[in-house]
Amino acid sequence: MVTRRVDLRSDTVTKPTETMRAAMASAEVDDDVLGHDPTAARLEREMAIIMGKEAALFVPSGTMANLICVLTHCNVRGSEVILGDYSHIHIYENGGISTIGGVHPRTVRNNEDGTMDIHQIEEAIRDPSFEICYPTTKLICLENSHAHSGGRCLSAEYTDKVGELARKQGLKLHIDGARIFNASVALGVPIHRLVEAADSVTACLSKGLGAPAGSIIAGSTSFISRAKILRKTLGGAMRQVGVICAAALVALEENVGKLEWDHNKAKILAEGLNKIKGLKVDLASVETNIVYFDILEDANITEIELSRNLEAHGILVMPEGPLRIRAVIHHQISESDVQYTLSCIQKSISTGGNGGS
Amino acid sequence: MVTRRVDLRSDTVTKPTETMRAAMASAEVDDDVLGHDPTAARLEREMAIIMGKEAALFVPSGTMANLICVLTHCNVRGSEVILGDYSHIHIYENGGISTIGGVHPRTVRNNEDGTMDIHQIEEAIRDPSFEICYPTTKLICLENSHAHSGGRCLSAEYTDKVGELARKQGLKLHIDGARIFNASVALGVPIHRLVEAADSVTACLSKGLGAPAGSIIAGSTSFISRAKILRKTLGGAMRQVGVICAAALVALEENVGKLEWDHNKAKILAEGLNKIKGLKVDLASVETNIVYFDILEDANITEIELSRNLEAHGILVMPEGPLRIRAVIHHQISESDVQYTLSCIQKSISTGGNGGS
Amino acid sequence: MVTRRVDLRSDTVTKPTETMRAAMASAEVDDDVLGHDPTAARLEREMAIIMGKEAALFVPSGTMANLICVLTHCNVRGSEVILGDYSHIHIYENGGISTIGGVHPRTVRNNEDGTMDIHQIEEAIRDPSFEICYPTTKLICLENSHAHSGGRCLSAEYTDKVGELARKQGLKLHIDGARIFNASVALGVPIHRLVEAADSVTACLSKGLGAPAGSIIAGSTSFISRAKILRKTLGGAMRQVGVICAAALVALEENVGKLEWDHNKAKILAEGLNKIKGLKVDLASVETNIVYFDILEDANITEIELSRNLEAHGILVMPEGPLRIRAVIHHQISESDVQYTLSCIQKSISTGGNGGS
Amino acid sequence: MVTRRVDLRSDTVTKPTETMRAAMASAEVDDDVLGHDPTAARLEREMAIIMGKEAALFVPSGTMANLICVLTHCNVRGSEVILGDYSHIHIYENGGISTIGGVHPRTVRNNEDGTMDIHQIEEAIRDPSFEICYPTTKLICLENSHAHSGGRCLSAEYTDKVGELARKQGLKLHIDGARIFNASVALGVPIHRLVEAADSVTACLSKGLGAPAGSIIAGSTSFISRAKILRKTLGGAMRQVGVICAAALVALEENVGKLEWDHNKAKILAEGLNKIKGLKVDLASVETNIVYFDILEDANITEIELSRNLEAHGILVMPEGPLRIRAVIHHQISESDVQYTLSCIQKSISTGGNGGS
Repeated sequence: MVTRRVDLRSDTVTKPTETMRAAMASAEVDDDVLGHDPTAARLEREMAIIMGKEAALFVPSGTMANLICVLTHCNVRGSEVILGDYSHIHIYENGGISTIGGVHPRTVRNNEDGTMDIHQIEEAIRDPSFEICYPTTKLICLENSHAHSGGRCLSAEYTDKVGELARKQGLKLHIDGARIFNASVALGVPIHRLVEAADSVTACLSKGLGAPAGSIIAGSTSFISRAKILRKTLGGAMRQVGVICAAALVALEENVGKLEWDHNKAKILAEGLNKIKGLKVDLASVETNIVYFDILEDANITEIELSRNLEAHGILVMPEGPLRIRAVIHHQISESDVQYTLSCIQKSISTGGNGGS
Repeated sequence: MVTRRVDLRSDTVTKPTETMRAAMASAEVDDDVLGHDPTAARLEREMAIIMGKEAALFVPSGTMANLICVLTHCNVRGSEVILGDYSHIHIYENGGISTIGGVHPRTVRNNEDGTMDIHQIEEAIRDPSFEICYPTTKLICLENSHAHSGGRCLSAEYTDKVGELARKQGLKLHIDGARIFNASVALGVPIHRLVEAADSVTACLSKGLGAPAGSIIAGSTSFISRAKILRKTLGGAMRQVGVICAAALVALEENVGKLEWDHNKAKILAEGLNKIKGLKVDLASVETNIVYFDILEDANITEIELSRNLEAHGILVMPEGPLRIRAVIHHQISESDVQYTLSCIQKSISTGGNGGS
Repeated sequence: MVTRRVDLRSDTVTKPTETMRAAMASAEVDDDVLGHDPTAARLEREMAIIMGKEAALFVPSGTMANLICVLTHCNVRGSEVILGDYSHIHIYENGGISTIGGVHPRTVRNNEDGTMDIHQIEEAIRDPSFEICYPTTKLICLENSHAHSGGRCLSAEYTDKVGELARKQGLKLHIDGARIFNASVALGVPIHRLVEAADSVTACLSKGLGAPAGSIIAGSTSFISRAKILRKTLGGAMRQVGVICAAALVALEENVGKLEWDHNKAKILAEGLNKIKGLKVDLASVETNIVYFDILEDANITEIELSRNLEAHGILVMPEGPLRIRAVIHHQISESDVQYTLSCIQKSISTGGNGGS
Repeated sequence: MVTRRVDLRSDTVTKPTETMRAAMASAEVDDDVLGHDPTAARLEREMAIIMGKEAALFVPSGTMANLICVLTHCNVRGSEVILGDYSHIHIYENGGISTIGGVHPRTVRNNEDGTMDIHQIEEAIRDPSFEICYPTTKLICLENSHAHSGGRCLSAEYTDKVGELARKQGLKLHIDGARIFNASVALGVPIHRLVEAADSVTACLSKGLGAPAGSIIAGSTSFISRAKILRKTLGGAMRQVGVICAAALVALEENVGKLEWDHNKAKILAEGLNKIKGLKVDLASVETNIVYFDILEDANITEIELSRNLEAHGILVMPEGPLRIRAVIHHQISESDVQYTLSCIQKSISTGGNGGS
């Protein structure tokens, strides 16, 4: 019988801590639609400062955060956004910017490190003198850290260069910073510096930070005003939302400091996996809390089989494609959990698969 | 100096009770996107039973609840929905069904009691043999209780008739039941009976029920599956959402029983207002917890002036248009609050306005 | 065996005259997408002058003309348009402004004469201070002549008042002038005067004017530039389009002068119908070339039966609803056709229907 | 003074021939919205046979043809289409499938020969079991011949393989066959064979075929019925459209046979250009009527300068980007025009640019 549970599927699985629960229970609240909930207001102020922007807005999820930002920048019919071909917005958010927002995406190849070549971005910008057959480029999106590349970080310098290009061409720059706290810790650079060039940033509160729900949008005061209307339109405005924001305020206090340790545990996991015969990890790619590992053909086990084997030991991972698995570290994974995981994987690999799928 | 506060702007202003806060603090939770949060699951099961539908789904707001339902029924490009010209969806939800969902609204006049003439609904249904120039009618929407008419209730019989028409014509019926609990209590008819004819229903948890946030969608299992995808697209899927759902479960237990008393207090307020020289209330319209009252011309005070005067006494109401004010009762308004409000209004009316706006 | 054909279904059924065909055969043309077709350019210049606007644009149809105008004025997500509940745009254009353009329609009741009460228009304009839950009113649409009311005309004075309201509120005014030539002739007022207050106007070339296809949009130079991009997006930009525009130029020369006579024939038809026992025509409503007539209950024949009877005599009319038929006059209907029609209807009514539908 | 004009910008610049003009002047026509114009009907029948499909529909442009097909296949909100990153639909049609249709595009790299790797297409198809965060793949689009690759042709075998993949995965296959007549002639394979695997095909009548305007959509009877409604919604339904269709019928008779000769002239041009010092043409890429040529750096002339020089000699070409020019052959370009063009280019290159842009 399994009792131990090690949930490595995502850093979204963290559960609110006792302190968070206490904060939720005692939060001062008010109607955030008719007025402004005081706890939400406090969270938004703190996040605006962290992001180095004039204002911030709490929204129910990262998907809504990105959707609102893209749609607010691209508020005119006929807009196009340039973004990575393996960006979260393009791949994992239901295509909402088009199917809900009518925005046309133009992708640029994401390099292994999550960047896009700046020259390729420049080439993708539409020449306005051909507006008769082109949509209008309005926005460039970056993602920091970049999930699909394994949580790799974009430097402030790279972001600045993209921002400079955007400004020169009259475009806006949005940063999907779902894991911008991880990027900041890994790079040793404050968030406000990492997103200095951006016109809007989103940050997730329920990933590494461990709050139960919600994301933040930050930008100029006027941008946030317009974002607030769109939040209402989409149905993301909640009444006494302070009860959730209270948990996020605790997360900021308690968990930001734990991210560095998360990254260390991720490295331990990655190195351990790389030593297991039949597995391979690109160690250079493990900059933050995400570990992608590949199963070698001769290990004779599929990613589905290995995942199932691990599940029998209470370990949950995310099969990501042919012979590829993702494991994500967060503050509720201990170093002992990592060792337990490594030993279970070692055992499972030695035993091999049985042809299931 | 004001210390007393009587917030009659809406029943959305209620604050979570101690029991709710305790429930939130101890809620069992899990990632509701990767899997199913157990507390959300429990709330959804309970609400499905109350609604008499196969399944239910928690969403962040009533606006999202209605948006998802309309868009799920009208998932094919070229769809039209028939709804009241003073329905909440048409007037107060940013036009999202069109501006986000591309659904074409066709309005039928809302009668004073919140109904639409069934014959007029029938006439508004598009003849499919003219599809070359007509959109396709897919859905009829009712609202029970109907906010803009002052919270008046639609009977089960009326709803059945509209449902019969819908079925006969191959259409779906959606009920915006933001205040369906109030309607049920006022009519003395269980909710599942009131919405029996409907293919989808929404109910608000943060209005009369007093939960901090959220609404519920109920419908068939397959409808809810599709609604869940759209909830994700719009950004309404939250992670450890059980913390909020826990409060809603308490609301169901504690506050449904208080709605009848809310309605009584609304009647007391209405009758009191009607006795004040210079004011007029249509008493017949006060079926639930909403009171609209009109200021007579010769009272020489505008709705803005009266609202401001009341604000100085800690009383908040909603000016709704020329010489019209809305006051909404909820479980955190006591009978003494009602009396205090009446006496402040009496005083303010006697004194008169000063021409401001 | 039927040889005579009298097609009264619409004024869109006119066939190009020999002069038009000759003009098409000799039209000077060029690629109107890469550059500007000279014949299209000439038509657009002439129409701009007639409309009293800076510029004009040829488009394939009236539906596209209105769609482009509404979408160009409402180019920002979240826009609302105020229009008549029985306007052509709202009822007969597939709901395209919403289903294709994401614009939210807000209807005001069309009076019997095709106007909307100005006070009701004013009330329908959204208060921008409630933008958190309201869409943004951007546009008012009028229709002159108004098809559904039987082709009744809006006076310049009425239009001016609506235009004044629009300007005062920062809104745009669009006139669907599909039959603005008829309105101008009937009122004895030049078109440019009738649409003076409008920011955009459309006019149909293939209705009373008798050109084979196409409509015109007129407005400011900058408006037409934006409209041109949208025409391309929708697929309405055609290459050597001068071949059709040539016919329209002939139509302007030859057929505008015939409209007065069309209106006279419509009056003859209306008066004749009104004398037939069992039929009723609101003679006051016959201001232009459209005649709606009602079958009295005791005539014992449905609109479908009567239409079928007429079809057997080569006469085509449009059944429009319970006991209501529409007949439209155009330059290819002679006075003798009108008399023939009257005598066939007289005969058919005397004989009565046989209960079919 | 320039008298000669050689317009090589596109094959859309052809002017209707005398035979076309005569056909237009004598075309039998009727209202194609209320009923079916007989000449349009004849063209649609002939094109359906050529395409090997059940039915066909005339539309004003290739952009509308593609827009209608993509939107008809992707008629449910949340749809995704897989198409080439340099397909005409993705790059040159204003992003209309998203900005007007709300369809999410997923691009696959176009190889130099206009194909996409079938394995990459397969990888781009969304796994329906992740519908919670994925849009739904509904359609694959091919383009034959492929404009951006210089008019290269997709073989029937390649198309069959993509079709097989589509069917296996429950997807539809659309072929943008704007220049499918050219592909058919170049490959020596009948069109119906080239598009056998496709659920819908478009073909342009105003490119190589030389008709003044219009494109054709072909597909199953039920597909065309749905396409017809969308044509009306977009405003592409025209009244006596037979006048244009008549020209297209002549084009089919007279000009299909000339395409082979167009391709020969393109090869003569390409070979001639390749012999000019300072220019380079990938001869293998010249399969049909499009010639892309590159200016070498040491020629010291930009594409803009060269284009301007040629314009002074009455020759129009299309500058396509840094040091790249496009020239397109059609039936109104003679071999002598090609020789004249070559000699003017030779002269201009020898003289060099003067640094303008």
